[in-house]
Amino acid sequence: MLLYFFTRPSFGFVARSGTKGWRSLASTTAETAPTVKELPVNYSMEEIVSLCKRRGIIFPSSEIYNGYAGFYDYGPLGCELKKNVKDAWWRFFVTSREDVVGLDSSIIHNPATWKSSGHVDGFSDPMVDCKETKLRFRADQLFFSPVINEQNEILGYVCVQENTDEQMVKDAKKQVKDLLKTLDKAGETIQAFSFKEVNEATEEEMKQIPSPASGKPTLTMPRAFNLMFQTQVGALSDESSTAYLRPETAQGIFLNFKNVLTTSRQKIPFGIAQIGKAFRNEITPRNFIFRSREFEQMEVEYFIPPGDDVWPEFHQKWMDDSRDFLLSIGLREDLMGWDVHKGDKLAHYAQACTDITFKFPFGEQELMGIAARGNYDLTQHTEGSGKSLDYFDELTKEKYIPYCIEPSLGVDRLMLALICSAYAEDEVGGEKRSLLKFDPKVAPIKVAVLPLVKNKEALVTVARELFDKLRVRWNCQWDASGAIGRRYRRADEVGTPFCITVDFDTIEKDNAVTIRDRDTTEQVRIPTDEVVSYLSKQIDGYA
Amino acid sequence: MLLYFFTRPSFGFVARSGTKGWRSLASTTAETAPTVKELPVNYSMEEIVSLCKRRGIIFPSSEIYNGYAGFYDYGPLGCELKKNVKDAWWRFFVTSREDVVGLDSSIIHNPATWKSSGHVDGFSDPMVDCKETKLRFRADQLFFSPVINEQNEILGYVCVQENTDEQMVKDAKKQVKDLLKTLDKAGETIQAFSFKEVNEATEEEMKQIPSPASGKPTLTMPRAFNLMFQTQVGALSDESSTAYLRPETAQGIFLNFKNVLTTSRQKIPFGIAQIGKAFRNEITPRNFIFRSREFEQMEVEYFIPPGDDVWPEFHQKWMDDSRDFLLSIGLREDLMGWDVHKGDKLAHYAQACTDITFKFPFGEQELMGIAARGNYDLTQHTEGSGKSLDYFDELTKEKYIPYCIEPSLGVDRLMLALICSAYAEDEVGGEKRSLLKFDPKVAPIKVAVLPLVKNKEALVTVARELFDKLRVRWNCQWDASGAIGRRYRRADEVGTPFCITVDFDTIEKDNAVTIRDRDTTEQVRIPTDEVVSYLSKQIDGYA
Repeated sequence: MLLYFFTRPSFGFVARSGTKGWRSLASTTAETAPTVKELPVNYSMEEIVSLCKRRGIIFPSSEIYNGYAGFYDYGPLGCELKKNVKDAWWRFFVTSREDVVGLDSSIIHNPATWKSSGHVDGFSDPMVDCKETKLRFRADQLFFSPVINEQNEILGYVCVQENTDEQMVKDAKKQVKDLLKTLDKAGETIQAFSFKEVNEATEEEMKQIPSPASGKPTLTMPRAFNLMFQTQVGALSDESSTAYLRPETAQGIFLNFKNVLTTSRQKIPFGIAQIGKAFRNEITPRNFIFRSREFEQMEVEYFIPPGDDVWPEFHQKWMDDSRDFLLSIGLREDLMGWDVHKGDKLAHYAQACTDITFKFPFGEQELMGIAARGNYDLTQHTEGSGKSLDYFDELTKEKYIPYCIEPSLGVDRLMLALICSAYAEDEVGGEKRSLLKFDPKVAPIKVAVLPLVKNKEALVTVARELFDKLRVRWNCQWDASGAIGRRYRRADEVGTPFCITVDFDTIEKDNAVTIRDRDTTEQVRIPTDEVVSYLSKQIDGYA
Repeated sequence: MLLYFFTRPSFGFVARSGTKGWRSLASTTAETAPTVKELPVNYSMEEIVSLCKRRGIIFPSSEIYNGYAGFYDYGPLGCELKKNVKDAWWRFFVTSREDVVGLDSSIIHNPATWKSSGHVDGFSDPMVDCKETKLRFRADQLFFSPVINEQNEILGYVCVQENTDEQMVKDAKKQVKDLLKTLDKAGETIQAFSFKEVNEATEEEMKQIPSPASGKPTLTMPRAFNLMFQTQVGALSDESSTAYLRPETAQGIFLNFKNVLTTSRQKIPFGIAQIGKAFRNEITPRNFIFRSREFEQMEVEYFIPPGDDVWPEFHQKWMDDSRDFLLSIGLREDLMGWDVHKGDKLAHYAQACTDITFKFPFGEQELMGIAARGNYDLTQHTEGSGKSLDYFDELTKEKYIPYCIEPSLGVDRLMLALICSAYAEDEVGGEKRSLLKFDPKVAPIKVAVLPLVKNKEALVTVARELFDKLRVRWNCQWDASGAIGRRYRRADEVGTPFCITVDFDTIEKDNAVTIRDRDTTEQVRIPTDEVVSYLSKQIDGYA
């Protein structure tokens, strides 16, 4: 009713590299195989938020000052995860491709940028105030419905905030109950709800819609609220010094189109990629890092020849590549979907836009968008700056302003989706186990090195030598204290895919170590000098 | 007179891994050895700025809108260089160490942070206005001197902007000449200049000091100008919603001290590292990316037990480690120096601070600072937040607020120093060659793969296979067009350390390729299947 999704039946399957060629082994440190449960998809956001805090992944910003709504800090594990996600994206879409180059433009641009791009005039959300409580709401996130009895009389209105369909109906039912009580009509039968955004309410309706804050009709009519953060640049503090924090990284790419074209050796079709912070003064930041006021984006503008016969193929290719990337870093395919923008939802300048969605605990929502933007942006900046931003095609001898395809992905959303994908519980040896099944590519810690005992010098020395060899390549953990099972559990909890145990056999017999897989708890015995190439294949995809 | 530097006689020498074990070879693609000239140290900033623009390293931000003072964009080569520099730092100080963990805190904190840290009240520069031209100057960057004749009479004043000593004396002499002309005293002998900051001028003196903009005494008395960019968070626009863009990344670390302590398994001494953007509303941004309004920092807060007998050793260790890091990524040792802060220069809360300086074309300036900050920051935040930020030492059973050492390095400054270190000219075969001698670790492009000819399919196929194998690991360039010498020159210009040529011998005889070294132009012949391990040793430091 509020959100509609088109899910495609199946994606291609991306296999993890196996452990072929090495002997699987049950040793003294082996566990019983885990009882694989269905991965939970019904965990709550509270669980995820608490997990992130407990394990040092994500903290509320400035927590000692009681936080700051819409801002978050990434802890030791979170910042490694984030770095790995960004590195993987950069490798996938920039360095391993010949037709995409990178850019790192400033967060604060010349403010004329945002006039041309349309953000100064148009980048706003509709907002309503509750006159009584002074609280503010996004008018497109409040939904109202008349309460109609069987005689088709409107008894009053209910108003609920956006949530899952079930929750919204539940909230509405409660309000109806209260309303009927007030009207002393407890027995009345009520027709089904028919929700509409408060944004679309008439003035007459607004006079009767109860504010979710006061319970009384105290909402103002919606007004536009620009989402760009403003600041003043320079020593003066007047109109002329007003600047904005970028609300998206894309415009920095358009501004540099000509600069990149003349300094790189690229020809159309080619793309410019950027990763960086962006800021939006959301009226109601919510759902943890899903909609925060400060966030990070990974965007490409892929420039192509103009023409309506050209872009659909490129658009499809970028949808495919985006999906492949998301699967390659371990996003759960069964939680992904597609949402094709149609009608009103499609921006006026866009030719097409398709979102890749993810089933978060709070509902299926946009994870990334792949838009075909035509030549809207370059044309706007040509007009705004008076500088030519066209391209001369040496093959066809034509001059044109290229079209572009824009895959745009939020780093923080993606991290949340990865955490939701990785969060799992199973049973090992009759005991409940909590683990994070991060793909080795993005796992914050790749390897834990565990000397079986810590009071045998020769054993510790060998373990230490191996650890030193590994940590110049990957983020590794040395863990020498506690029973081995307890150490495995610690590694599972933070999503470390491989535990290497150095035992007595290592130094006395075979000069080999056991490598335990986090997800299967299976162990293989590997000669010590083959450990790097074994892990490299699993972590980096090459050896 | 303005800047004083203590340079230490010599740093340890960090050798580049050699090419031992592989045969040096003169082949058909070989060049004559370069005539090594002394590296230029007297290039101007204009040359560096122009080089950066021309090669796609750094562009002025929003250039199509005539730029924006104090903001810069990193182009395709620049953002790779920047990424490599940050990755090298992260590897050196975070992942390869067991006692340092990472953090990625938000740019916008709860504004109470900046009240406690002292930034709201004290983070300002003294500013003077020129009443006539409306131009603004930092009062500590303007220097004035009385013009005194042999009879000890003050004839008037000169006022110059901060620059090299020589340039300032030159500017002052010109002003004296004009003054004497005006006074009709052309023959007068003038005593040596004795400069003082305009910041320290008395009201009487200010009435006579000529503004560098108008040439007349039109400067106002200095006033404090806070350097933090302000914005408004939330839908309200009043005092309560004022927030700041962080002027340094350090405070985000202090805020999270307790969070990191409880979620990681660290014990004091340990450090928290962060890389991220910071913003300062500089009155006079200048010297390209050296002092910009938006910049990136790499900072560690290393927490240690309190006590005046403890910190000096840690402080020295962090100075040594910092120097080692800078040398490891290719900074020119002969351009580096030390500056020990003493007396007034040392902040009131600091126990010690030593800068590592670099001889930029505009003078020797701070590249990074290593400060011993005691427990100033944690104490301020304890008071400001009312939350305990102390540490319980399990060994000594003591509770204390730790001291800390803060090595703080600007990414953009470091990049500028690296570009200045790498920029060189020499002669190869009688022709002038311009190159960027980036260390392989930070070079934007690591390898160029050059098929000797492009019309021989078997040869191109082999080259392509090698290219595909390399580019999953490193940022590589495929270059198949033009004479081989011209392709070498293109690679030299962008600082690519290795060129691999696939020639007829590769496919017909030896299944080997030639790898050319950018700096020496020396070539070695390497079996194709040993290329990865050869390069890995040179680029990553391991194979």
